[in-house]
Amino acid sequence: MLNDQALDTLFREARTQNGFIDKPVSDEQLRALYELMKWGPTTMNTQPARLVFVRSTAGKERLAPALSPGNLDKTMKAPVTAIIAYDSRFYENLPRTFPNNPNAKAAFEGEEKKAHVQTTAMRNGSLQGAYLILAARALGLECGPMSGFDNAKVDAAFFPDGRTKSNFLCNLGYGDPSKVFPRNPRLAFDEACTLA
Amino acid sequence: MLNDQALDTLFREARTQNGFIDKPVSDEQLRALYELMKWGPTTMNTQPARLVFVRSTAGKERLAPALSPGNLDKTMKAPVTAIIAYDSRFYENLPRTFPNNPNAKAAFEGEEKKAHVQTTAMRNGSLQGAYLILAARALGLECGPMSGFDNAKVDAAFFPDGRTKSNFLCNLGYGDPSKVFPRNPRLAFDEACTLA
Repeated sequence: MLNDQALDTLFREARTQNGFIDKPVSDEQLRALYELMKWGPTTMNTQPARLVFVRSTAGKERLAPALSPGNLDKTMKAPVTAIIAYDSRFYENLPRTFPNNPNAKAAFEGEEKKAHVQTTAMRNGSLQGAYLILAARALGLECGPMSGFDNAKVDAAFFPDGRTKSNFLCNLGYGDPSKVFPRNPRLAFDEACTLA
Repeated sequence: MLNDQALDTLFREARTQNGFIDKPVSDEQLRALYELMKWGPTTMNTQPARLVFVRSTAGKERLAPALSPGNLDKTMKAPVTAIIAYDSRFYENLPRTFPNNPNAKAAFEGEEKKAHVQTTAMRNGSLQGAYLILAARALGLECGPMSGFDNAKVDAAFFPDGRTKSNFLCNLGYGDPSKVFPRNPRLAFDEACTLA
């Protein structure tokens, strides 16, 4: 069981950041982030998530035209913007990453499996996106996740092969507390949960 | 920044459980779990996830016909099986949960928004499923997430109104270390990540 300070850092006191102070995030930190989040569970160890850590001026300029107006300025100024994407042919790795089931790859192949592939990629790619958010917080970073952008434009700019597809974006860095919005209410236990 | 023990508990040493010891999970623990995971960020505070904590014999018997053979026995024996589902009309809460944008609800209404609603529900409902997994670990529980089941059968048995849809399942309890499988390899940083 984690202590109260850790629970605060991960959940109770953590806030979505809408501005970041001018303090860089190193390549070593991004590697440490992946080395932590990679352990989160995925269906048959599929690991569909693919990450682009955008932190150069050229990279940010490629991203800019895809962003909604409300997300533009803070994203240009964030030390890093992670594109959380997924490999639409994630299952090609299964003979290596899930060797216990020799039929795992075949379960995703063929025209009639396309909907299953898409659902598996979105479900597990999103799980991995949440692992990234909480791993970043665990490592002392703060996050600004966003889905307000044009996925097709991001895909055209960063994934021209058509195989990798964007899911959502997440700014990473050290938050500017003056830019945080008031916290919005969460659903009560009895609204979201049932005991059966 | 969390200490090494906490990082081990959340990510590095945590393992998917395939069997559970005979030690109950209390209603208070399930409430504490929701009270922690609820803080995780979702798009416009949409919070689409809905949870059913199945722990009665009657509840388990309702679930059983939907399970794949490999998931049946361990799920029947787990102290709790969480159904991680989503409310397909999550946006009806937005006037209350995202009051800063009076147009938020309308952005999800109408026939032409159905794909956007579905994508938002799956992305954010899955993020919340990952928050549940990591919050459970943070609170000293262990997890066995599963997507090997018949979603339509679970929906018919637990959500006859047609509004709530199952996403994945997660057994919760205290793991039996003798039932854990060998850990499968994760993709290397350079396979999953790019710097731009």
